[in-house]
Amino acid sequence: MEKRTTYCGLVSSEHLEQEVTVKGWVQKRRDLGGLIFIDLRDREGIVQIVFNPETSKEALEIADKCRSEFVIGVTGKVVKRESAINPNMKTGEFEIIATDIVIYNEAKTPPFVIDDNQTVNEDTRMKYRFMDIRRPEMFNNLKLRHQTSQVMRNFLNDNAFMEVETPFLNKSTPEGARDYLVPSRVHEGHFYALPQSPQTTKQLLMGAGIDKYYQIVRCFRDEDLRGDRQPEFTQVDIETSFLSAEEIQTYTENMLAKVMKEVMGQEVVLPFPRMSYDDAMARFGVDKPDTRFEMELIEMKEAVSDIEFKVFQSALENGGAVKALNAKGVAGNYSRKDMDQLGQWLAQFGAKGLAWVKVEEDGLKGPIAKFLVDHSDKIIEATNAEVGDLLMFVADKKEVVAASLGALRNRLGQELGLIDNDTFNFLWVVDWPLLEYDEEAGRYTAAHHPFTMPKASDVELLKTNPEKVYAEAYDIVLNGYELGGGSLRIYQRDVQEDMFKALGFTKESAQEQFGFLMDALEYGFPPHGGIALGLDRLIMLLAKKDNIREVIAFPKNNRGVDLMTNAPGTVSEIQLEELHLNIATDEK
Amino acid sequence: MEKRTTYCGLVSSEHLEQEVTVKGWVQKRRDLGGLIFIDLRDREGIVQIVFNPETSKEALEIADKCRSEFVIGVTGKVVKRESAINPNMKTGEFEIIATDIVIYNEAKTPPFVIDDNQTVNEDTRMKYRFMDIRRPEMFNNLKLRHQTSQVMRNFLNDNAFMEVETPFLNKSTPEGARDYLVPSRVHEGHFYALPQSPQTTKQLLMGAGIDKYYQIVRCFRDEDLRGDRQPEFTQVDIETSFLSAEEIQTYTENMLAKVMKEVMGQEVVLPFPRMSYDDAMARFGVDKPDTRFEMELIEMKEAVSDIEFKVFQSALENGGAVKALNAKGVAGNYSRKDMDQLGQWLAQFGAKGLAWVKVEEDGLKGPIAKFLVDHSDKIIEATNAEVGDLLMFVADKKEVVAASLGALRNRLGQELGLIDNDTFNFLWVVDWPLLEYDEEAGRYTAAHHPFTMPKASDVELLKTNPEKVYAEAYDIVLNGYELGGGSLRIYQRDVQEDMFKALGFTKESAQEQFGFLMDALEYGFPPHGGIALGLDRLIMLLAKKDNIREVIAFPKNNRGVDLMTNAPGTVSEIQLEELHLNIATDEK
Repeated sequence: MEKRTTYCGLVSSEHLEQEVTVKGWVQKRRDLGGLIFIDLRDREGIVQIVFNPETSKEALEIADKCRSEFVIGVTGKVVKRESAINPNMKTGEFEIIATDIVIYNEAKTPPFVIDDNQTVNEDTRMKYRFMDIRRPEMFNNLKLRHQTSQVMRNFLNDNAFMEVETPFLNKSTPEGARDYLVPSRVHEGHFYALPQSPQTTKQLLMGAGIDKYYQIVRCFRDEDLRGDRQPEFTQVDIETSFLSAEEIQTYTENMLAKVMKEVMGQEVVLPFPRMSYDDAMARFGVDKPDTRFEMELIEMKEAVSDIEFKVFQSALENGGAVKALNAKGVAGNYSRKDMDQLGQWLAQFGAKGLAWVKVEEDGLKGPIAKFLVDHSDKIIEATNAEVGDLLMFVADKKEVVAASLGALRNRLGQELGLIDNDTFNFLWVVDWPLLEYDEEAGRYTAAHHPFTMPKASDVELLKTNPEKVYAEAYDIVLNGYELGGGSLRIYQRDVQEDMFKALGFTKESAQEQFGFLMDALEYGFPPHGGIALGLDRLIMLLAKKDNIREVIAFPKNNRGVDLMTNAPGTVSEIQLEELHLNIATDEK
Repeated sequence: MEKRTTYCGLVSSEHLEQEVTVKGWVQKRRDLGGLIFIDLRDREGIVQIVFNPETSKEALEIADKCRSEFVIGVTGKVVKRESAINPNMKTGEFEIIATDIVIYNEAKTPPFVIDDNQTVNEDTRMKYRFMDIRRPEMFNNLKLRHQTSQVMRNFLNDNAFMEVETPFLNKSTPEGARDYLVPSRVHEGHFYALPQSPQTTKQLLMGAGIDKYYQIVRCFRDEDLRGDRQPEFTQVDIETSFLSAEEIQTYTENMLAKVMKEVMGQEVVLPFPRMSYDDAMARFGVDKPDTRFEMELIEMKEAVSDIEFKVFQSALENGGAVKALNAKGVAGNYSRKDMDQLGQWLAQFGAKGLAWVKVEEDGLKGPIAKFLVDHSDKIIEATNAEVGDLLMFVADKKEVVAASLGALRNRLGQELGLIDNDTFNFLWVVDWPLLEYDEEAGRYTAAHHPFTMPKASDVELLKTNPEKVYAEAYDIVLNGYELGGGSLRIYQRDVQEDMFKALGFTKESAQEQFGFLMDALEYGFPPHGGIALGLDRLIMLLAKKDNIREVIAFPKNNRGVDLMTNAPGTVSEIQLEELHLNIATDEK
């Protein structure tokens, strides 16, 4: 058989009346009036091939043996179809009159038809992943991923960024999520850790004068899996020297705009909007607002201050908050039972209940209407309410009000169809607090990571009131998902020491774990900062999927297993011995 | 301080009489007649800055505090130097008259001067790697690596190759080198393995219809380190469907030619020469010949057949070989003692000794001359010898003759200056045997890997005489180093089963370990093949270095330790418990 001259899916008018050779998979075979029709598929699409006893009896006989997913090569002449033109197919005006065919490989009956319209359970798709990827949808997701990576690389290369590869086998440090560990064979009792991010290494590269670094790199976290979290994930990792936070954001948004334009064919408006963390929490209840729809959280403190409703008053008296959502014009869609269910659903966010009223022609109606009735005007003014609106209130600790109304807002945004799924809304959330107080551990933890720089004006507060310190940190948000986060980094040893102290490290433990970085800060370290974007999540959103497994060739399922290769496996006694390891069992 | 307007090293005539802002590291400071001169360095080079009391007294005072490796920013006007023009410096015609300076960070006295002319021991360089990379030479090696990767990516993208990311956490399989293992926290007693290569995964991607795949990807082998081997290394990994071995080679060599042109500014002749494995072994004694110089191995069987020298005769009688090297014109350079030492050095390759004669005006001279004297003409004719030549002979088993004379040839090539270090000689070594016999294990092992396809004409031999089977395998060699290897792969289940059988697998063990692939071959698997290139080694050769550590940002030293971060480390009892691991100790 000759060399392939074109992909099946790319047969076009330029091939008319010419001989071509195509190679691919039998999508389907039909026999009709002594002819055989084969739809032949490759990664670019499908083309119809006709086997005709007058053109080649031998080819017809071989074609007769073909079944779905057989791998074949065909040579023949491209002609215009006389009839049965298929406008839904790229190559639908053409067909190939075969003169030669070769069967490269046969195929058992596949467990599912290679077709985007099939509903197949995910375990089956994962078990036969190599066949699942033959489906155009999966292929196109992988292609989207490929194209997006390349556009980002090209942008970064064009802007003097340099890709530098950092190690995968690192020293384990206890900050952050759980590490995947790799026992060292040579250093008995010692372990490498797979990187959760090349954070400290890329900072060292700034100390090394690389100036503008990037890497598209695999990272690892040994955490339980979710739809949007895989144990290994790919990060677009960027670090720069001498730039301001705004300059780093500008590079990032220009890069994303280029992806949107070149991969998605969409123009996005630059610069992306900026919103402070405090604003995001106040107006949306979350640190990653979905700004594709409005329905913001409404501060009700003033409007309800005179209302003698114990739930509201006690929340306010205890330093908490009362906030509302106004779901415009949908009061009629929600029964009392629906509202009870919403209230129960909110319990997972700590809310003790959901208060609500409907705005009707003759006033506010609903379980708590009697408390509000004397103050209707204030309520209606504050919530901008009109007849037909559904007003929902949560009164509780500030964090609970934010978390529950934030989640309720996102849920209703979906449920009420307020979201245009073709919209991509990018947003910067800036001015983050440096620290979070971890109730359980009874200490501060880094809101981003321990290398994040405090705002210059807050550096002194770090010693006295660490909870009041804001950080030079920024997150990039897309449609309510955190795409990535970055910051300026600490580049002075004394500030880094203060930071570790605020995080509860002793001087010795900080030095033991991060001495390699802190010592380096003393040898001419430039101001620097960067960002890390989650590639998997970006592709998931661009592909309009809600599960990262749809955009990875061989993902793990929720049990941490790739169903094709069935990892992880057992290992031999010899391997364990070489690693100086025993496996603990309950019997011991 | 303003934003940077240019890199120090890029100050040029286009900036003349303009104000610029540069940021970087103090290379050196000189005080001269009330002026201060600072050579400021960034990744692009060095520029001279002049601080002048008349221009800015404040700037002069701050400049006075600067020491080597301080990080500063400077604003000033670019002017032509009036004197002391430095032709060895890119910016040597210019200087910046400073009006403003800011010190971003101070620096302790560095452990070595940041300068390519320093000799520093490697442990110190590794310990302060972030400073070592500030040296232009290290930076340029990393830049060469960056550029080479990008040129290869661009070539592959332009040729319809798609980058697909494959998993790092895989099932461990026992073939090949030792795996790095990662204990699973969730699956007790089970381990992931880090990939030695994405070999089977990329084959599955061919079954998935990706058609043309590539990935520049980290791989891992838990083997002892050497100068040209790191435990983690980067592979340019390529796989294609429906292409012949020649077509894959053509893509590969076109890609490498593009690297040579765009990165090294050198045209290389295409196609690269092809040499069979058998030829390479016969003519050069190695499977990766350095073709930058001649001095090939000379078959002496006929010429010595009548010579009554027991060493030669017994080698031939036992099925061995007698071969020679002719080192032209250097007989005078080697004393008898030198030759004794060469002979001793050859012992590591199994040679029992090195026989030699010098060609002098009055005939052959040297320890074995007396055996050859009656047959001088034949010897001289076979070795093409002239007066002044040094003839060296090894007589032994074929493998020993090849290994020892191959090594001797490479050593003499260096020693005698026969190699032009500016030459890059690429070579394909093709037509490999499929299997090697492993004396120690008493069984066949795969010369490449178990998925390599036998030559079509040899498929039947696989069942009966596996040692006679040749493979559709090819290596790409550069200047005597194996850059990479590839093959067509087995795509039919029965052939793959025969291969595993020849390798000593039972049907069950083959299925248990490689069932995921063999089962896939039954569902419409296309003919496919590819190649994998070692990026580290390619960059090492292009950078004209003899140690891979020179082209990796943070390599491990020979003890598997990155001296900066001092990996690997110990882990806590809790971490071990979560992994169900104990560490075995001798005390137990």
